[in-house]
Amino acid sequence: MTVAAEPVLAAVDWGTSNLRVWLLDGAGEVIAERKSGEGMSSAGAKGFANVLEEHLAALDAPDELPAIVCGMAGARQGWVEAGYLDVPARISDFAHAATEAPGARRPVRILPGLAQRGAHPDVMRGEETQIAGAELGGGTRFVCMPGTHSKWVRVEDGVVTGFRTAMTGELFHLIATQSILRHSLGEAPDAGAPTAPAFREALKTALAHPERLTSALFAIRAGGLLGRIPAEDAAATLSGLLIGAEIAGAVSASPGMHLVTLVASGGMAKRYAAALATAGLLVDLVDADAAVRKGLFEAGRRLYFPGASA
Amino acid sequence: MTVAAEPVLAAVDWGTSNLRVWLLDGAGEVIAERKSGEGMSSAGAKGFANVLEEHLAALDAPDELPAIVCGMAGARQGWVEAGYLDVPARISDFAHAATEAPGARRPVRILPGLAQRGAHPDVMRGEETQIAGAELGGGTRFVCMPGTHSKWVRVEDGVVTGFRTAMTGELFHLIATQSILRHSLGEAPDAGAPTAPAFREALKTALAHPERLTSALFAIRAGGLLGRIPAEDAAATLSGLLIGAEIAGAVSASPGMHLVTLVASGGMAKRYAAALATAGLLVDLVDADAAVRKGLFEAGRRLYFPGASA
Repeated sequence: MTVAAEPVLAAVDWGTSNLRVWLLDGAGEVIAERKSGEGMSSAGAKGFANVLEEHLAALDAPDELPAIVCGMAGARQGWVEAGYLDVPARISDFAHAATEAPGARRPVRILPGLAQRGAHPDVMRGEETQIAGAELGGGTRFVCMPGTHSKWVRVEDGVVTGFRTAMTGELFHLIATQSILRHSLGEAPDAGAPTAPAFREALKTALAHPERLTSALFAIRAGGLLGRIPAEDAAATLSGLLIGAEIAGAVSASPGMHLVTLVASGGMAKRYAAALATAGLLVDLVDADAAVRKGLFEAGRRLYFPGASA
Repeated sequence: MTVAAEPVLAAVDWGTSNLRVWLLDGAGEVIAERKSGEGMSSAGAKGFANVLEEHLAALDAPDELPAIVCGMAGARQGWVEAGYLDVPARISDFAHAATEAPGARRPVRILPGLAQRGAHPDVMRGEETQIAGAELGGGTRFVCMPGTHSKWVRVEDGVVTGFRTAMTGELFHLIATQSILRHSLGEAPDAGAPTAPAFREALKTALAHPERLTSALFAIRAGGLLGRIPAEDAAATLSGLLIGAEIAGAVSASPGMHLVTLVASGGMAKRYAAALATAGLLVDLVDADAAVRKGLFEAGRRLYFPGASA
């Protein structure tokens, strides 16, 4: 006979385009979950509190179950502005900087993003919670979180000390669908397998000469016109060039980086693991979904159950 | 009393978006000219021959006046495919590789583009005629022709030996209007004056670390959110980063380049002259409009008046 675990926390990852809700038990294990396309961009129309309550009702969550939220729901145009913590920022301080969200029938707190206000201004919102959940331990760690806006983060003894965002995913989409390269990439550009020769060759080209990125890109179009790059290799070449340039830039900005904690899932994890290895970096892979859940659970524990043991 | 000069040639620069027609006298001087938005993309509907004849009629050109054309009118989707000459290509051979265009009431020849079929595939169509008209003389010369697709060309003793195309102008437009940076750049992004501090600072940033381009771009958005980059500086910053990365890439791919022949006009000439000087390069400026006219005249002279002296 098994006893159904009781949820103690609703953990919510609320990005620009997507929403994920988990009910977690006292050990941080998943009891139930929901995924939705009601991201920050679309949730405003129905009201953030209403959207969240609908999903929690569908999961049979108790009325008084507290919720913790990370991501773009905390942006100015989101549910309520949750502000930024400035780096250097101690991971254990994130939770107590959370902002109460109005209008729900339960306690809801939204975690702050991180801001870097120096010579290289940068921001993140949501990834800081993945970092908190990646269980990095002590010492200096370099974290790569690939995506639309890939984040490269330096963490020293539990303190986020600096980061950079590369627009890799967004540039891939824009160039593949809107630039003159679209004629070479076709209707549904697919970056293909990370083991494809075209991806690896482009990756090496960009790692060797990242400063030539904007002309390497045009060679995809010219190579198509001249029959040197087959149409089926064009998207893999574009992906390899952009990821190679991203990694080369991160290496240049991160003296002493040899081991990278890659926080990613699925195909993205495979693609970046292959790329980082090609660049000569050691990779420690952390599942991104698990990391954000752990980060949310840990923040919820600090906020709602401060007396409980870690 | 002045005698009106007689036209000996119609010179036509027919690009993707624009058409320019000049009537030239026996010394290559301009007698009359027309500009039009009937570029390669739109001229097909009316017929290229019809479009050209309309403009020549408006200039009172004699029926038998021969015409010489360069640019995208010679692309596959243009008037008639004028092919490519492969590099290394001798400038004095361009004219004799011209292709006859059908349907006009006069002789019309379209000049070929240039193709580079090596490890870095590349193409140009129209710029080769500017090179021919830039009167580069002997020795090794490096030519920069900025624009939507900036061309960097190496010419050795009258032979084009290699070139690279950077997508600077197209990337500026795409990123300024379609990416998340559009929120920082506003409705009508203006790259501003080449002396603007924001342009120069971004240029220096990109020249120092061109390999960090895709994260330097995101800093424009983050700098806007954090109040570190005023909205009016965002477009100048984007322009500086992209032009700086272009120049750094060209320097890396062009060992021995100290003097650059900049073939450009107007604001583009000023912007690149300032940028090249900041990069420590000497600049020899050639007006792009004059260069293309000279190149067309020289090709027309070789094709239609081979007996005349240069």
